[in-house]
Amino acid sequence: MRLFRLAALVLALGGTAMTASSDEGMWLLNDPPRQLLKDRHGFNLSDAWLDKAMKANVRLNSGGSGGFVSPDGLLVTNHHVAADSIQKLSTPGRDLYRDGFLAQTRDAELKCPDLELNVLQNITDVTAGVNAAVTTDMTPAQAAAARRAAMAKVEKASLDATGLRSDVVTLYNGGLYHLYRYKKFTDVRLVFAPEKSIAGFGGDVDNFEYPRMNLDVSFFRAYENGQPAKTPDFFRWNPDGPKEGDLVFVTGHPGTTNRLETLAKLKHRRDHTLPYTLTRLRAVEAALHQYGEQGPEEHRQAATAHHSAANARKAFSGQLQGLLDPEVMKQKQQAERDLHAGLVVGSHQHRMIPGLQDAKIHAAPTDYLDAIDRVAALQATLAGFEREHLLIETGHGFTSDLFTVARHLVRLAEELPKPSAERLREYRDSNLDSLKLQVFSPAPVYPPLERVKLQTALTFLAEQLGGAHPSVRLALGGKNPAGRADELVRGSKLADVAERKRLADGGKAAIDASTDPLIRLAKALDPEARRLRTRFETEVEEPERQAYAELARLRFLALGKSVAPDATFTLRLAFGVVKGYDVDGEKLPFHTTLGGAFDRHTKLGGSEPFDLPRRWLDGKAKLDLATPFNFVSTADTIGGNSGSPVLNRAGELVGINFDRNRHGLVRNFVYTEVQARHVAVHSRAVLEALRKLYPAEALVKELIGG
Amino acid sequence: MRLFRLAALVLALGGTAMTASSDEGMWLLNDPPRQLLKDRHGFNLSDAWLDKAMKANVRLNSGGSGGFVSPDGLLVTNHHVAADSIQKLSTPGRDLYRDGFLAQTRDAELKCPDLELNVLQNITDVTAGVNAAVTTDMTPAQAAAARRAAMAKVEKASLDATGLRSDVVTLYNGGLYHLYRYKKFTDVRLVFAPEKSIAGFGGDVDNFEYPRMNLDVSFFRAYENGQPAKTPDFFRWNPDGPKEGDLVFVTGHPGTTNRLETLAKLKHRRDHTLPYTLTRLRAVEAALHQYGEQGPEEHRQAATAHHSAANARKAFSGQLQGLLDPEVMKQKQQAERDLHAGLVVGSHQHRMIPGLQDAKIHAAPTDYLDAIDRVAALQATLAGFEREHLLIETGHGFTSDLFTVARHLVRLAEELPKPSAERLREYRDSNLDSLKLQVFSPAPVYPPLERVKLQTALTFLAEQLGGAHPSVRLALGGKNPAGRADELVRGSKLADVAERKRLADGGKAAIDASTDPLIRLAKALDPEARRLRTRFETEVEEPERQAYAELARLRFLALGKSVAPDATFTLRLAFGVVKGYDVDGEKLPFHTTLGGAFDRHTKLGGSEPFDLPRRWLDGKAKLDLATPFNFVSTADTIGGNSGSPVLNRAGELVGINFDRNRHGLVRNFVYTEVQARHVAVHSRAVLEALRKLYPAEALVKELIGG
Repeated sequence: MRLFRLAALVLALGGTAMTASSDEGMWLLNDPPRQLLKDRHGFNLSDAWLDKAMKANVRLNSGGSGGFVSPDGLLVTNHHVAADSIQKLSTPGRDLYRDGFLAQTRDAELKCPDLELNVLQNITDVTAGVNAAVTTDMTPAQAAAARRAAMAKVEKASLDATGLRSDVVTLYNGGLYHLYRYKKFTDVRLVFAPEKSIAGFGGDVDNFEYPRMNLDVSFFRAYENGQPAKTPDFFRWNPDGPKEGDLVFVTGHPGTTNRLETLAKLKHRRDHTLPYTLTRLRAVEAALHQYGEQGPEEHRQAATAHHSAANARKAFSGQLQGLLDPEVMKQKQQAERDLHAGLVVGSHQHRMIPGLQDAKIHAAPTDYLDAIDRVAALQATLAGFEREHLLIETGHGFTSDLFTVARHLVRLAEELPKPSAERLREYRDSNLDSLKLQVFSPAPVYPPLERVKLQTALTFLAEQLGGAHPSVRLALGGKNPAGRADELVRGSKLADVAERKRLADGGKAAIDASTDPLIRLAKALDPEARRLRTRFETEVEEPERQAYAELARLRFLALGKSVAPDATFTLRLAFGVVKGYDVDGEKLPFHTTLGGAFDRHTKLGGSEPFDLPRRWLDGKAKLDLATPFNFVSTADTIGGNSGSPVLNRAGELVGINFDRNRHGLVRNFVYTEVQARHVAVHSRAVLEALRKLYPAEALVKELIGG
Repeated sequence: MRLFRLAALVLALGGTAMTASSDEGMWLLNDPPRQLLKDRHGFNLSDAWLDKAMKANVRLNSGGSGGFVSPDGLLVTNHHVAADSIQKLSTPGRDLYRDGFLAQTRDAELKCPDLELNVLQNITDVTAGVNAAVTTDMTPAQAAAARRAAMAKVEKASLDATGLRSDVVTLYNGGLYHLYRYKKFTDVRLVFAPEKSIAGFGGDVDNFEYPRMNLDVSFFRAYENGQPAKTPDFFRWNPDGPKEGDLVFVTGHPGTTNRLETLAKLKHRRDHTLPYTLTRLRAVEAALHQYGEQGPEEHRQAATAHHSAANARKAFSGQLQGLLDPEVMKQKQQAERDLHAGLVVGSHQHRMIPGLQDAKIHAAPTDYLDAIDRVAALQATLAGFEREHLLIETGHGFTSDLFTVARHLVRLAEELPKPSAERLREYRDSNLDSLKLQVFSPAPVYPPLERVKLQTALTFLAEQLGGAHPSVRLALGGKNPAGRADELVRGSKLADVAERKRLADGGKAAIDASTDPLIRLAKALDPEARRLRTRFETEVEEPERQAYAELARLRFLALGKSVAPDATFTLRLAFGVVKGYDVDGEKLPFHTTLGGAFDRHTKLGGSEPFDLPRRWLDGKAKLDLATPFNFVSTADTIGGNSGSPVLNRAGELVGINFDRNRHGLVRNFVYTEVQARHVAVHSRAVLEALRKLYPAEALVKELIGG
């Protein structure tokens, strides 16, 4: 019994890391699992290895990861991460997303309209300063404002001092605050993209599945002052790739996990947030699918947005299945109970758990229960206005490129006159350049597609809140969603970047004088949107941060930082072993082959999504069909890790992560390595395809030398 | 002011019929608009014309209409109405739905597994008897039971006396009860179906749009005693079709309209029922689409279900846009206000409105307001359990062929021992044969498709009610939806019709002893499902019937039966004029041409849904491309009218209705003929295609003679 409790305590405290029994963890680069790597895999993580992993790693503002692979700014990422830029570089006559692209010379590389790269330079713990700004006598509203101001102040000071993009990152849901400083690149050019049909071979059917045969890679180059950027920190391209049983590392930017959330929070996600999210995604996906069915040009325009919606729908569906799995919830519930029980008896037993010796655990059980209860109570509060908040403030009721621009213009006029620390967080000085890159992006806008997006969003708004809701009536302005969307898009001039700049330069006077219907809509909605945001920040976010900070404190007392924080789209280090797995008695090998793609194409009749590019069909004979194509490992990844370099012990690139399998969809909540795997493109497959099919000799030479 | 009120009164009393200003109305065949037809169109509706319209008309249990077109049982309907049977006749190697079918001889005609035809023989008003069973001192529960029993008794007596299928139909939402007697055919064979790609050319993109170019027709033949049925009442096939300006009639079985519903009911639909319905349909459509993407065989299996979901989604989306249109709601609101005002002043003015003379309208205003308020209050009641009712009793949480069978088997065992009048309505004696045709259908069942349907439904159930809801926990049985669906389908033997019969024959003992997981699930859910049904019937349905009966009484007092009742999937007569219309200044002609299909195919690149069958591409030169293909008229139709014969003054068939345009989607609530049109296949196009492309000489000969 005692042993059971102790084991449970360790589990409940946040994972299995202490027992070194799994490869779980998306680790902070300033607090890496050195001992664990040594114990489990006999690997000595050096400072030099870590430093390169940090400085050769790239975060893309389109929502993924990548890595430098030459000293001249060349970087590799996934095709599906590059897709946003590839789509924006395409035109009615030139569908680079469908057909691919290769710059034979540097002059031919295509400048992306609004892609920003962030390369982490260093990390500083600023927890004490951020927490010191909040005192116990503050109301939640005061605390939220004080914390926001403290964060903005740290960022502003850092930006002024270093010129680097400076973000204060919240870790352990409020347990720690770290300052991340990034070198930023905004001149980024497309070097190579394969055809969509091989990059995403198998489409929605094979997404989150394995075996896979995807060439989900693209190459960009970072430029500075009009010249290829010098990137002395880069990953050497390993031409052989990994073997079964190899230790590999995934360094990248996992977006969101929820493993340290309380049971009440997970139930809220299961019963409220996820059903809402799926309802929304299905509506968006259906609308984009139907738009694309109208003809080839409409299909082209909607292609990447449609893929994004489908991808998100599949990921969130997997999450919901996970939270509806009684086993998963039981595990979480047991963990919460056992942590409490463990804390009660902990003072007598802590000697048996390494690291517990100095924990003042005897003080913890009531604090713990109180924090758990507070998080639960906050979910009931959130349920009362979550949909309104998401629809009106987050903007799900208006999702479209043009409304996003309109809202930013309206808010820029309102926020910029304020001191940076008092603004809505996204308008703080340290974020302004990145924001403007988006707002003034010359990326093409397709009015018919905007109309469909807006009609879909307005209809969803009305479905969720009802036709009599004041915000719905305001949004619809006396029309139905179809008529209103038409009126808004037809009447707006915001597709013209010069008009956006005119309004931004003109400040509040220009916004007040504007008769643009989208500006007027964004303006009319703003009081209610801000009210909902304030409500969210003060009634949910800040009290949650405080409760989670308490839970984090107890966890640190017991285990130090030996449990990694949940993912936050910041750089993390994961590791794992390259190995296959069994499904229903069938042994799935650790890698697939190029030949497998042809087999699947043939078997399924070759129609979408199992069509192969003409270049592949014609060039089949040139290929070594036994070349490993995709491979899997146990390393701990999540969405946002797309495009992450997969490294070997030597820090060389052996693969590019692009997905996880369906067994890994539950990783948001629990890590398992029984069947869950991430999936990566094998470094050898990339070389084979580039050499034999495209042919991209200059690129290959840059990767592995002459 | 007085005139305004009077005009408004007429409008409010349910439409524009009295003023003979429009072609609105889905008229009862025992109360046809003779005077209106004479006044508006100079047409004398004869008893003989009406009698043939009744007895040559066919209702299909798959949810559509059709008409006999030869004395030998040959009938025409839409391809999309026939689709359910065509799909069930297809097999992995033989995809009749995609590729079409033609029986060159009668021997080659294919017997449908579970298609039932109903041909109306006569109508009797049984209102007095049904209402007499309900007395004012009864509770709603007693009233509901008494009414149900009275209806079942009438039906049973009629069945025993005539041998005809006998249904008591509720009209005017409870204002009238009519007994409909049908001749029934259950041996129905497929004669001809075109390829899906020409039957539904343009797919989801063109659905509910115009111009259209669809050969949306199929032919069946009714059999009796193994021989082609003798059908002396049939529509002669007019080889020329209609001309612009022609008066035409649509005789068929419109499913549901909501024009006589109160404003409160429509708001309930807008804010509750329709958002729920669309959420569900999008989930189903997405799941079926994804299933079909797995490969050609999966695509084949899911094709018709996928099309049905997409079609419903588009129709309900149009309804929602209509109810979110403030103009539509204003019209309804004004109508309700004006009817009240009109009733208040009516006694002084009724002489000005023909038909009002004898109305005891001075007694009406308070009765009217009371009934309106009662309907409003019932919507609040309904909102409290509507989703549970639809999910658990209607079965949206379990939608799949096998669960439907399981529930019927469980309930048959429970219900059959009771007297017919006391059973759940669908198990009454007069309906048993039709029900068993479905339950014991030998139509193929595809376990992987069943699994996906069930997973989708169970997931939707959990999304709607939350993971902690007792019925969700019961339904999931300790698994997540994916795992549970797998367990249920894998463990069930209900795909085997012999097993279904064994369980049905064994009665309650067999059901109680069954370990089939689907039987056990249906059984475990039944108490709660029945509780919800009782709650719906007693707390909503019966009180609504009573309130609407009162509203109908007032309407009859004022206007007699000059306003048609809402549609109820019973035979109706509509009429209209063949004419085109303007959209955004563009004049759309009253008909399209065969050549138009080829033009659209070419313009849109010929890929799905704009692909044409090989036969059409190869045979293009043989066709007279100027042949009218589809045409439109102002006649009043709705879903269920699919496959309705379109007749000329002589009662000859000039077209087959298959759709309405997007402007007609709001017809559930208001009729307009400014742009709203129904769309029909032109009788000449059918002959041209049958002669030149298929070639179906025997069929052509049967239609128009040698």
